[in-house]
Amino acid sequence: MDPAVWLAVIIAQLSGYFTGAYGGGNYTYEIKTIDVPVDHFSFTSDATFKLRYLINDTFAQGTGPDSPILFYAGNEGDIELFAQNTGFMWELAPKFRATLLFAEHRYYGHSLPFGNQSYESPKNLGYLTSEQALADYALLLRTLNSGNGTSRARPVIAFGGSYGGMLAAWFRIKYPHLVAGAIAASAPVRQFQDVTPCGIFNQILTSVYHTAYTPECTANIRHSWAVLQNYSTSADGLRVLNEKFHFCTNLTKATDVTDTFFDYLTDVYGNLAMINYPYESDFLAPVPAHPVREFCGRLAQNYTGAELLDHLESALTIYSNFDGKAKCLNINSSYDGSGIGDLGWDFQACTEMIMPMCSDGVHDMFPPKAWNLQEYSDKCFKKYGVRPRPHNALVNYGGEFLESSITNIVFSNGLLDPWSGGGVLRSTNAKIKIVLIPEGAHHIDLRASNPNDPETVTRARATHTQSIREWIDEYRKQKKVY
Amino acid sequence: MDPAVWLAVIIAQLSGYFTGAYGGGNYTYEIKTIDVPVDHFSFTSDATFKLRYLINDTFAQGTGPDSPILFYAGNEGDIELFAQNTGFMWELAPKFRATLLFAEHRYYGHSLPFGNQSYESPKNLGYLTSEQALADYALLLRTLNSGNGTSRARPVIAFGGSYGGMLAAWFRIKYPHLVAGAIAASAPVRQFQDVTPCGIFNQILTSVYHTAYTPECTANIRHSWAVLQNYSTSADGLRVLNEKFHFCTNLTKATDVTDTFFDYLTDVYGNLAMINYPYESDFLAPVPAHPVREFCGRLAQNYTGAELLDHLESALTIYSNFDGKAKCLNINSSYDGSGIGDLGWDFQACTEMIMPMCSDGVHDMFPPKAWNLQEYSDKCFKKYGVRPRPHNALVNYGGEFLESSITNIVFSNGLLDPWSGGGVLRSTNAKIKIVLIPEGAHHIDLRASNPNDPETVTRARATHTQSIREWIDEYRKQKKVY
Repeated sequence: MDPAVWLAVIIAQLSGYFTGAYGGGNYTYEIKTIDVPVDHFSFTSDATFKLRYLINDTFAQGTGPDSPILFYAGNEGDIELFAQNTGFMWELAPKFRATLLFAEHRYYGHSLPFGNQSYESPKNLGYLTSEQALADYALLLRTLNSGNGTSRARPVIAFGGSYGGMLAAWFRIKYPHLVAGAIAASAPVRQFQDVTPCGIFNQILTSVYHTAYTPECTANIRHSWAVLQNYSTSADGLRVLNEKFHFCTNLTKATDVTDTFFDYLTDVYGNLAMINYPYESDFLAPVPAHPVREFCGRLAQNYTGAELLDHLESALTIYSNFDGKAKCLNINSSYDGSGIGDLGWDFQACTEMIMPMCSDGVHDMFPPKAWNLQEYSDKCFKKYGVRPRPHNALVNYGGEFLESSITNIVFSNGLLDPWSGGGVLRSTNAKIKIVLIPEGAHHIDLRASNPNDPETVTRARATHTQSIREWIDEYRKQKKVY
Repeated sequence: MDPAVWLAVIIAQLSGYFTGAYGGGNYTYEIKTIDVPVDHFSFTSDATFKLRYLINDTFAQGTGPDSPILFYAGNEGDIELFAQNTGFMWELAPKFRATLLFAEHRYYGHSLPFGNQSYESPKNLGYLTSEQALADYALLLRTLNSGNGTSRARPVIAFGGSYGGMLAAWFRIKYPHLVAGAIAASAPVRQFQDVTPCGIFNQILTSVYHTAYTPECTANIRHSWAVLQNYSTSADGLRVLNEKFHFCTNLTKATDVTDTFFDYLTDVYGNLAMINYPYESDFLAPVPAHPVREFCGRLAQNYTGAELLDHLESALTIYSNFDGKAKCLNINSSYDGSGIGDLGWDFQACTEMIMPMCSDGVHDMFPPKAWNLQEYSDKCFKKYGVRPRPHNALVNYGGEFLESSITNIVFSNGLLDPWSGGGVLRSTNAKIKIVLIPEGAHHIDLRASNPNDPETVTRARATHTQSIREWIDEYRKQKKVY
């Protein structure tokens, strides 16, 4: 551990700072709240709620307005999860004598606008949007960092991974007066209708599994759907599945297999690819190093029928029970206990975050499934009483980032990350930097340094650090106008 | 008339285009509507309403995606009023082979989200905000100008004067992917708490009157408040005032003078300075050329008592009855019949557009009045049931425009315009251009050319044209990314 970090940890512990509740680092911070309007964009009511944020000022002590603020734009989960899994920021703080600030996204963690009724109806849930979240962050920064008299505010650098990366980039675009630059890691800002083909995600995912151990891995997965479906059609078959997979709730009808279990498997394959780090980790779930390789190691030869299911079950435990604590397989959520708020995300995916997905079973290992916006919209309407606005994000934030006025964003993408297909991988704008990490999974560059990091990850972090330095220098040259 | 404009007017008339209902030019356009969400930033309901816009495609015919769109960001009034009073855009259209597009601001003109109940309660009126209006414009542009296949959308240049100028600048800041540049004329984007001193507006205003004809003008006005107040304290005094001023509704108590009439006078002095153009015009009201000079011509010597009131009454008719059509003096609104929606603006001034104003009677010609946010807030709460968010605009849009990522905005200000004090008059950012018009009143540069225009106005328009040309060139160089 960097001596400065070590010292800060000691100081923090002495001053009664909290330690995070989630896996990852062992970082400490104060937990605070700020009152923010439920609706920043209308005056139909004066209602406010308490938005939670985490702050650590120990690295910035005594440095005043020259010290930057490293700001994490919280995404769909408990903010402590992201604070603990964004070690890169903790490594940067002593270098830049920076304050660390992590803001929780509304409707996640403890930041619930209507308490335990926040998810009750569209009337309550409807304020769960990216624009409202960004407005929360803007108000927080303006409040903590307003400058005074002749002093400008301290420079702020935004960070985020995945949806948090989208928010970090969008924050810089929408509030450039509050944020000097943004590191947007694995941010699929182009994963929207008419911009990115719907099959890309599953194609990248399949290629990750295909090359992880032996090619039989994807052949087995591709084959498994038919085998499972076959078992699903009889009571005997269902009984066998229940025995083999130890589900927490027994499957009792065909759609329990072809809907619920298929969805779970699809999620797990995606999640494993996202957290396919070269070391043991605990982000979406506790997993070993190189979890996709481990998974495919258990599907290394061609299997059929019951034998295929046995191997699939064994492979699945890499994700579902690596720490040996699970008593049964809960297929209702692949995020159980992770701190990720998949209920909230489900609503966002039905409103603004319409990311078309499809598969054809040829270029990917999944059952063929076309993208059908109308069907998707109907399903959302049935669930939430509101219909998607599929172009909302593109209208609000744009999708090309060409404009000379969009500057100081780094888009980094691991090419082994299925989300990279919807990321920004090319730029004709000199102030939008692209960092590609050939061996990287989902926002690995935001995680703490690890001896097993491939060199491309280490290099990405060095590039980020250089960009941040440039943005801060640029910011300092700007003079306040009277 | 430019032959191209003349030809277009003929073509337009042949194709059944409408001619505006308000004074100003005699320009023609199609009147259309687009369905937009009542609330762009929440999913509490799917309600939409019809937003009105005016479009003229006659200059762009056959030029396709190379032809720009000149877009007026509608402000607090009927959009036809602004279309008719923004002749500069009509003069540019043939030069750039551009489409003209004027969007109406929600809650003004015919764009009423809840029909004739739109102003009924905060529940209905609460969606009247600048952010919602900008989101309307974004959706309109995205719909009319989405590009297709390999083509980028057509370049869009935003225009606006006064609050419309604020919207044009903010539109470029918030939606740079939709707008290549903005001409923000007389936009008081810095007229907010803690940024611009509250007394500036009235100081500039006073100096305009002081130098318009003889210095006695401001001495008389400064003296008039006490005279009026004196008359207000007795029934006899009130009777004299009612006889002299021919109010539409007789004044019956002291506060009718010191509140209603004082407010009206204050508004009229401001309005006259705003529309102090060097030619006869009809924007807020029909007035002669150089209306402040005409006004002060009638207060050219030192008067006292009843004589002062007679001269003041005569001077007021410059604003209230220049066309001789008024039967009495309506002091309930200084915008009566102008197309300006002062009810809506009153709400906006109570929510987001908190522009502190004060006077001391020494550096200005008004009765001393401090700025008191609490009092202001209480008054707003009493009226509308909601409290101001005085820092909202600064949090959302910034107030300094230093950041390298804020580009391609021209802030133009007439120095004879009292609003110029809250404008952007200096810039350390090379891509934010400042145009000062020493002899200019409120957004005179957006009006049609006139033989009486001072040279500085003509030069400002030439500078704007050059900026627009550069922004379009820059836009064309950007290549679409796949």
